Amino acid sequence: VSGTQLLERWNGCGYYRLNGMRVTRADADGSTLRITIGSDHLQAYGTAHGGVIAGLLDAAMGLAILGPAPDGEGCATIQMAVNFLAPARAGPLTATGRVVSGGSRIVVAWAEAADATGRTVACATGTFMRVPGE
Amino acid sequence: VSGTQLLERWNGCGYYRLNGMRVTRADADGSTLRITIGSDHLQAYGTAHGGVIAGLLDAAMGLAILGPAPDGEGCATIQMAVNFLAPARAGPLTATGRVVSGGSRIVVAWAEAADATGRTVACATGTFMRVPGE
Amino acid sequence: VSGTQLLERWNGCGYYRLNGMRVTRADADGSTLRITIGSDHLQAYGTAHGGVIAGLLDAAMGLAILGPAPDGEGCATIQMAVNFLAPARAGPLTATGRVVSGGSRIVVAWAEAADATGRTVACATGTFMRVPGE
Amino acid sequence: VSGTQLLERWNGCGYYRLNGMRVTRADADGSTLRITIGSDHLQAYGTAHGGVIAGLLDAAMGLAILGPAPDGEGCATIQMAVNFLAPARAGPLTATGRVVSGGSRIVVAWAEAADATGRTVACATGTFMRVPGE
Repeated sequence: VSGTQLLERWNGCGYYRLNGMRVTRADADGSTLRITIGSDHLQAYGTAHGGVIAGLLDAAMGLAILGPAPDGEGCATIQMAVNFLAPARAGPLTATGRVVSGGSRIVVAWAEAADATGRTVACATGTFMRVPGE
Repeated sequence: VSGTQLLERWNGCGYYRLNGMRVTRADADGSTLRITIGSDHLQAYGTAHGGVIAGLLDAAMGLAILGPAPDGEGCATIQMAVNFLAPARAGPLTATGRVVSGGSRIVVAWAEAADATGRTVACATGTFMRVPGE
Repeated sequence: VSGTQLLERWNGCGYYRLNGMRVTRADADGSTLRITIGSDHLQAYGTAHGGVIAGLLDAAMGLAILGPAPDGEGCATIQMAVNFLAPARAGPLTATGRVVSGGSRIVVAWAEAADATGRTVACATGTFMRVPGE
Repeated sequence: VSGTQLLERWNGCGYYRLNGMRVTRADADGSTLRITIGSDHLQAYGTAHGGVIAGLLDAAMGLAILGPAPDGEGCATIQMAVNFLAPARAGPLTATGRVVSGGSRIVVAWAEAADATGRTVACATGTFMRVPGE
C-alpha cells in the first residue's frame, strides 16, 4: 500500500479510533502520531494511564518500521521498554518514532512523546519482528 | 481507603471505563484484572494493540503494590518492560500482578496476562516509586 | 552435546574464566550459576558493577534455554531488561534461570540472583533467538 | 572531585581494570568509554559476552550522569534495558552515553556501543537514582 493507504489503514483500526490516536506521517525518516489526552485516558490520579502512553509509543515505533517497508510487510512487537519521565496531563501529545537498527528479521526502534510545551513525557525502545506479506 | 474503595476508585477512572478493564482483587498476595478484548482494542492486523496489553499489565503491577499499601499511598510507574509472547485475539484476558521486591521508595513488580485457554500472551516487569499520601 | 559437555564448554570460555563464573546446572527445569564477588568485580562505590550482575543473569537465562535444547542448537540474546534490587557486596551470588515462554524461534526467559543470605539482588527478563546447529 | 579525578577514580576500580575498560570523557555533553574485546571477554560462540556489553553501556550511562553532577554525588542503576544489535567480535568498542531526562532524584540515560567500523553493536536505556554525597 502507499503511504496514504498505510495511514488510513491504521487510523481506521479499533484501537486508534477508541483512543483518538492518529498517525500523520510514516516514512523513511520515521513516524509522527498525535493524541489528545482527555478524561477517558486518565487513571485515578488524574494523569494519563501508562497504557495510553505505551500504546502511543508502541505505535510510533511500529509505524516508523512500516513506513519504509515493502508493501504488505508487517511487523510484530516482541518487546518494549518504556520510561515514564513526567506525568502527562489533559492536552495534546505528539510522538515521534524512528528505526535504530534494522535487520532482515529483527528491528529495534525508538520513540518519544512530548506534550504541548515540548516536554518529553515518555520514551521507549522496542524490538520488532518483520512479518513478510502474503 | 479499604480494599473495596480501592477497587471502586480504579474501576471508576476514565481509562478503565473506556477500555472495559476491571480490577477484581488487590491485596497482599497480588492483583487480578480482567478485560474482554473486542473490536475497539484491535490494531490493523486484527489482534489486540500493544497499548491495551501494556495498560493491563501496568495496572496489574500498580494494583499489586497499592493493595497492601497504607491508605492514601500512591505509586507511579517509572519504567516497564513488556514481552509480547503471543497475539491476543478477541475474548477475555486475565492479568495477575505481584510485587517482586518492595523497598521504602522503589518497588519492582511482575505481571502476566493469559487468555481464556490459559495461554500467557504477555508478561512485564515494572519499576515503581511509592508516592506518600497527603 | 550432553549436559556435562554443555557445562564444560561454557565454564571454559574466556568470560566465565575471567570473572570466575560457573554454571553448575542447565536442564529442563532451568539453570544455576555461581560467582563469588571479589575486588575485581567492584565499581568505585565498593559494590558489584552492574556488568557482572547483568552478565550473570544473561548467562542464567541463556543456559536455561540451552539446557533442554537439541544438541548443537545455540541462542543469542536479542534484548534483556535488568532490575537491580539491592547492592551486591563481596561474597557468593547464586543465579537461577528459567524459560518463561519458548517458541520455535523466540524464547523469553527470567533469571534472578541472590546473595548468601538469600536476598535477591537483581532480576531480569530476556528475549532470545534460537540459532539452529550446523 | 574534578573531571580528571572522576575518571581516575573509575578507571582505577576493580571491574574496569579486570575488563580493561576505560572512561575517557564524562562531562555535560555525555561520556565516552573504550574497551578492546579480547579472548577474556568471549562466550562459547566466540563473540563478546552480553555481560561485557551490558557493563560497558551501564558505565557509559552512569558516567554521563556523574560527569556534570555536583562533587560527591553518586548514582545507582535501578534498571537497564539492553538491545544487542550485532555480535561484537574481538577488537575495540567505543561507547557513548548521554542523559535523556534528568530529574532531581531519577535520571534516564541512553548509551550505545560501536565497533571499529562504526557499526552499532548494542544500545541501552537505563533508569538511575541520584545518591547525594555525604
